[in-house]
Amino acid sequence: AAHGARKMEDYGRFLALLASTLLVGFLSVIVSLVWVFHYREGLSWDGSLGEFNWHPVLIITGFVFIQGIAIIVYRLPWTWKCSKVLMKFIHAGLNTIAMILAIVSMVAVFEFHNAKNIPNMYSLHSWIGLTAVIFYSLQLFLGFAVFLLPFAPVHLRIALMPIHVYSGLTIFATVIATALMGITEKLIFALKNPAYSASPPEATLVNCLGLLLVIFGSLILWMASRPHWKRPPAENAKILRPIGATPEGTEVESTMTNSNADKSDLTGNTEAARKQNINFDEAGQRSTM
Amino acid sequence: AAHGARKMEDYGRFLALLASTLLVGFLSVIVSLVWVFHYREGLSWDGSLGEFNWHPVLIITGFVFIQGIAIIVYRLPWTWKCSKVLMKFIHAGLNTIAMILAIVSMVAVFEFHNAKNIPNMYSLHSWIGLTAVIFYSLQLFLGFAVFLLPFAPVHLRIALMPIHVYSGLTIFATVIATALMGITEKLIFALKNPAYSASPPEATLVNCLGLLLVIFGSLILWMASRPHWKRPPAENAKILRPIGATPEGTEVESTMTNSNADKSDLTGNTEAARKQNINFDEAGQRSTM
Repeated sequence: AAHGARKMEDYGRFLALLASTLLVGFLSVIVSLVWVFHYREGLSWDGSLGEFNWHPVLIITGFVFIQGIAIIVYRLPWTWKCSKVLMKFIHAGLNTIAMILAIVSMVAVFEFHNAKNIPNMYSLHSWIGLTAVIFYSLQLFLGFAVFLLPFAPVHLRIALMPIHVYSGLTIFATVIATALMGITEKLIFALKNPAYSASPPEATLVNCLGLLLVIFGSLILWMASRPHWKRPPAENAKILRPIGATPEGTEVESTMTNSNADKSDLTGNTEAARKQNINFDEAGQRSTM
Repeated sequence: AAHGARKMEDYGRFLALLASTLLVGFLSVIVSLVWVFHYREGLSWDGSLGEFNWHPVLIITGFVFIQGIAIIVYRLPWTWKCSKVLMKFIHAGLNTIAMILAIVSMVAVFEFHNAKNIPNMYSLHSWIGLTAVIFYSLQLFLGFAVFLLPFAPVHLRIALMPIHVYSGLTIFATVIATALMGITEKLIFALKNPAYSASPPEATLVNCLGLLLVIFGSLILWMASRPHWKRPPAENAKILRPIGATPEGTEVESTMTNSNADKSDLTGNTEAARKQNINFDEAGQRSTM
């Protein structure tokens, strides 16, 4: 009973954090729309500033908010009854939507720059942003080929999963850093009379937008990196867990990292490994940073 | 023998990454000095731009490079023979140096702004930067009080360690994001005729500096988050490990996260817990994100 109560308390804590994260995410999207419609030129697709404005709106909606949700989608407890492959499709699908929105938002800037004869790709924002989009596409392609298609051997999945998790979180953090640079650039360029340094209401609002993005990113990284909030391994993978380990991990707060899936056992017997494909895939999936 | 060879290979990989990290870190510091001395007004402490220039140099040296080294100091294999308390002092000492340099670098900007009648604290860079310094100080104070002083009870150390690790890495990432915003601001403000958008050599050099900071941060986060590169637990903590777990973790590549230190066991018997203080502290210390 005490165990059950602790589990419920932990579930409640997860839901509270998820609600905060969604709130901060939605608020970021709304503030970006207020910025663009109330203080700037709104949205259009005609080479004017209205076309440029798609850039912040789509980046915050797609590359920050939707990417963030894609990262924590395996953590939602009510999805643990769904098949793993369905969740992989949702994870890949959300990331694909985020990538498309990021690319459209980049096209908006390039078209705006070209229409106004502003050079492309001169700023640190553009360098790191383009690098992030390239790595994100690579991550999506590799993730699809290795973890979603059924062809990759078990040992490859196990070897690549920690890299997939690390790259995913690092790219996500880099995207937020790039958004902060973009906000800085835009406020310096757009605010004249009164200037950015005079702190007009627009500057205060958009600085707050930057803070919201940092809070959103921090919440996503916290939820993604708590081992006891991970999707539990499949039923038939239970044999792989060490004696005394709790599958749901609700009691595990110290998050000491050990692995029971000894790699030498895996590579030693390829026949057995092939049979246990799903189990080890599950094990690979559960890897953390 | 095969096991030993794998261990050596893993050790070699760690050293190669460490060397790359140090190289990128040193290069960042050198490029910041080249920027300030070759392209800008050098260093001074007289309210001029020479005083402002301490800001990027000290942030990159202290708040990025030294903080980064402080984060991975427990990972250096040749320190695993040193006592844990000595390593804690080195970790805390490096972070204290980083904090002092960050504060001096902020004083330089405030004095420069005041001398030139430029408003303080209007930009997103300043908002997030000040927030990072405040959280960093808090983190240092709490870390000192809980993990270095001998008064905190075991369960508090275990409960706070994952938060300490998460906050540390998140603050570090935020500091790098803030540095990228600072670079963006400075290049826009300082480069006129030719402007930033005309990509003069200074712009290219300092954009590269920004890329170096992102690479440095990514390498530190990778090294800090590999469970098999952690300092092994103390000899007398061996009883806490599950059957079949490898203390050095060299074979553990899947980084599946499970804990053998069941919290309910800890809190259940306070007398036994107090006796095993060092062991559990060790366990707490080994927590990952």
